[in-house]
Amino acid sequence: MRSSPRVTVWNEYVNERTKPEVAKIYPKGMHEAIAQHLRSEGLAVRTATLDQPEHGLADDVLAETDVLIWLGHTAHDKVKDEIVDKVHRRILNGMGLIPLHSSHHSKIFRKLMGTSGDLKWREADERERIWVVAPGHPIVAGLPPYFEIPAEEMYGEYFDIPAPDKLVLISWFQGGEVFRSGCCFYRGRGKVFYFRPGHETYPTYYQPEVLRVIANAVHWSAPVAGPEIGHAWQAPLEQLQHETTS
Amino acid sequence: MRSSPRVTVWNEYVNERTKPEVAKIYPKGMHEAIAQHLRSEGLAVRTATLDQPEHGLADDVLAETDVLIWLGHTAHDKVKDEIVDKVHRRILNGMGLIPLHSSHHSKIFRKLMGTSGDLKWREADERERIWVVAPGHPIVAGLPPYFEIPAEEMYGEYFDIPAPDKLVLISWFQGGEVFRSGCCFYRGRGKVFYFRPGHETYPTYYQPEVLRVIANAVHWSAPVAGPEIGHAWQAPLEQLQHETTS
Amino acid sequence: MRSSPRVTVWNEYVNERTKPEVAKIYPKGMHEAIAQHLRSEGLAVRTATLDQPEHGLADDVLAETDVLIWLGHTAHDKVKDEIVDKVHRRILNGMGLIPLHSSHHSKIFRKLMGTSGDLKWREADERERIWVVAPGHPIVAGLPPYFEIPAEEMYGEYFDIPAPDKLVLISWFQGGEVFRSGCCFYRGRGKVFYFRPGHETYPTYYQPEVLRVIANAVHWSAPVAGPEIGHAWQAPLEQLQHETTS
Amino acid sequence: MRSSPRVTVWNEYVNERTKPEVAKIYPKGMHEAIAQHLRSEGLAVRTATLDQPEHGLADDVLAETDVLIWLGHTAHDKVKDEIVDKVHRRILNGMGLIPLHSSHHSKIFRKLMGTSGDLKWREADERERIWVVAPGHPIVAGLPPYFEIPAEEMYGEYFDIPAPDKLVLISWFQGGEVFRSGCCFYRGRGKVFYFRPGHETYPTYYQPEVLRVIANAVHWSAPVAGPEIGHAWQAPLEQLQHETTS
Repeated sequence: MRSSPRVTVWNEYVNERTKPEVAKIYPKGMHEAIAQHLRSEGLAVRTATLDQPEHGLADDVLAETDVLIWLGHTAHDKVKDEIVDKVHRRILNGMGLIPLHSSHHSKIFRKLMGTSGDLKWREADERERIWVVAPGHPIVAGLPPYFEIPAEEMYGEYFDIPAPDKLVLISWFQGGEVFRSGCCFYRGRGKVFYFRPGHETYPTYYQPEVLRVIANAVHWSAPVAGPEIGHAWQAPLEQLQHETTS
Repeated sequence: MRSSPRVTVWNEYVNERTKPEVAKIYPKGMHEAIAQHLRSEGLAVRTATLDQPEHGLADDVLAETDVLIWLGHTAHDKVKDEIVDKVHRRILNGMGLIPLHSSHHSKIFRKLMGTSGDLKWREADERERIWVVAPGHPIVAGLPPYFEIPAEEMYGEYFDIPAPDKLVLISWFQGGEVFRSGCCFYRGRGKVFYFRPGHETYPTYYQPEVLRVIANAVHWSAPVAGPEIGHAWQAPLEQLQHETTS
Repeated sequence: MRSSPRVTVWNEYVNERTKPEVAKIYPKGMHEAIAQHLRSEGLAVRTATLDQPEHGLADDVLAETDVLIWLGHTAHDKVKDEIVDKVHRRILNGMGLIPLHSSHHSKIFRKLMGTSGDLKWREADERERIWVVAPGHPIVAGLPPYFEIPAEEMYGEYFDIPAPDKLVLISWFQGGEVFRSGCCFYRGRGKVFYFRPGHETYPTYYQPEVLRVIANAVHWSAPVAGPEIGHAWQAPLEQLQHETTS
Repeated sequence: MRSSPRVTVWNEYVNERTKPEVAKIYPKGMHEAIAQHLRSEGLAVRTATLDQPEHGLADDVLAETDVLIWLGHTAHDKVKDEIVDKVHRRILNGMGLIPLHSSHHSKIFRKLMGTSGDLKWREADERERIWVVAPGHPIVAGLPPYFEIPAEEMYGEYFDIPAPDKLVLISWFQGGEVFRSGCCFYRGRGKVFYFRPGHETYPTYYQPEVLRVIANAVHWSAPVAGPEIGHAWQAPLEQLQHETTS
């Protein structure tokens, strides 16, 4: 357990380089917008992108990462299975994961959930209002009862995930849908927080409440010094008697 | 929703044909012991094994199966990925799954859980006592507060699974361990019940309480006529206004 | 476990007798609208009201009730504590409870939850859209992905309840709120399903989807023959050795 | 959210003053053993006992308490209902609660749980082995996969509590029982951690692993600056249109 978790923000970093309207909002990529905020809160943050060797997630990077933030969208299939497997093992061994928005369909999120990650969606510049349903949870520290995002992509139920270990946020959409937007999962020694907002054509990752949730989630999902896990034969801890009980 | 679920009992069916001490207990295979009991309760049951074409799980079989019972042990790796993928999709679309004992390491269970399924284990002819911790759950109908299995393999924590949606049974072992032995999971439209007992060198699948749990789990995990799920664009259900709220 | 649960629909039955606009919709009371539907599905249903001796919930009535549906609104405080205590004990011992709508503030629901049951509310004739978030759960059998109630009272988060053991339905409201509308709780040997809709000035309890949910919940919450529970000294089940482990 | 939660350790403080064998182990009371350890970790700790005015829990004390540790055993009924109600409200508004051992039958725990808190018990100087089943949870930081208490009172299932929001620890007992020993609950804005060990005739509250769990639980259950909660009418957040959707 560290007082200050070491964060890696991973981004496929495709739309920001191919779509001018996205580049205008996130000139250095969505990952840099998030990284910059987390650095301003005193965290040690590095970034990694799809086009780097090993997608920027070499063994030493993963070993030095306490919490991995994941931004995938149009290039999920380009992420190599062997990297996904390494990230998966690292999470089960304690690393936190924060999959954002369209990462609901990323290989790593689907692998961790065991479900499809499917949902309903629509891009219609509509208002999203995010409600807190777990007011005692550390991820909502500093939030009001709800906050609004003026325009976002819609994600609607049924969202095909296991029921979260803790459901923290539910979204309301102008067009008539609801969505489980902030979801905590424990997996192995690791913790996962899925957070919905962040379509690339909106300045969502500059909004203070959104950044607050992400920063809180970094602290919540950071590793704790819990016991080792694994598969093993175990010697009896008690003397085995082979009589029948009376 | 059918009044009487159609069951398929799948078994890798290896140990019963290679180890005389197992064949002696289960001369027709563990799957037949279970199938016979379920038939005696009036259920329509078929069986399938690893060595059959498509492991006995062709599309028409899966389509006509409401609940699949799974017995894998030494041959998990022999199960083809494409069959696992088909079973996985069928479960997310409503089929029940009951992975028994060593199926904690089967491909299908690991894929559904998103975790390793690792645990501690020992074969030492020791007593297991299984305690009910959810006395209002349909899977424990007809059970006493606890029941004993005179000799079993030990499985101990930490069992690397997501926290069950409902924890129903906890095992005590003579050698000093505990284990979450009866675990309900909802995944997509499907339901999964992991049940621990059943090492092949013991007559566990002839014990009435064990069979009672399996039969109850068949009824619990059978499909219900819930709504369709899937990934799709969705038109707005409300007229979208694009003014700002006051 | 009975194939056909015996239902008692309890209603404070005040508004229907004092407010003409309510009497017009529910001339025999809201309880009779619900009871009539359940009878049409073949269930044995009786009703009980606040003004009857012991509120219509004498010991023999409770003993013969498998599932109790509860409709309280303006007269929560008129319900005697001793009756609440008896109902509470009966639920912990296996009886199902289905508190509807404004029963979120009933004595029995608050006592079972351990929280305030507080929420946000508004009467503004607005549309409610109820989304299924657990498509494999028996309570949603026969439902589409969502259904609408043309006009209802609004209930909004934060709803002060423990996180449900299973969250089944989430409501969207026209005015901008969301609400956990269908919530399953296990308590002792009993099961509780809170269901939101049903303000007395709307014909909500004649709507087929609403009645379908209530009927499904009756079957889900009916008692199962699980083990007895209670507080007791227990003799050792194993021979106690008082040496130290090595 | 404070970096260092302010703790109050409440004890009925009866057995330590009436039973010499208890006084010998805890000469200043069990509360002082716990308080002393927490102070050694740098926490601000006060104590309160049943025989003080308002049981030592006057409004200003509660207002300045972030986490309340509760030790009740033989005098549950002596705790005044009005104090219980105040503690309850304070918890729903954010204060953490750590009920220890026999506090499973305290008024405040039963009120928060909505169940009886009943269990099986036995005093037989037997070994307890406590297993971690949530290796990523902050309450197990610094723990090995299991730890043993050489002699303790036995508590066995069925423990009549709602399923914990997170089950962290399960106990094995020499005499053949299991018990959910470390249980996290969210209630309102507050968090509750029930922890089983601590019979007064054993030096359990001097054992490092036990103290580690309690200290970790103090940090986990401390208030966060989440949104206010309460019951209120709410104005529409969106302009309400009263046309029907097409």
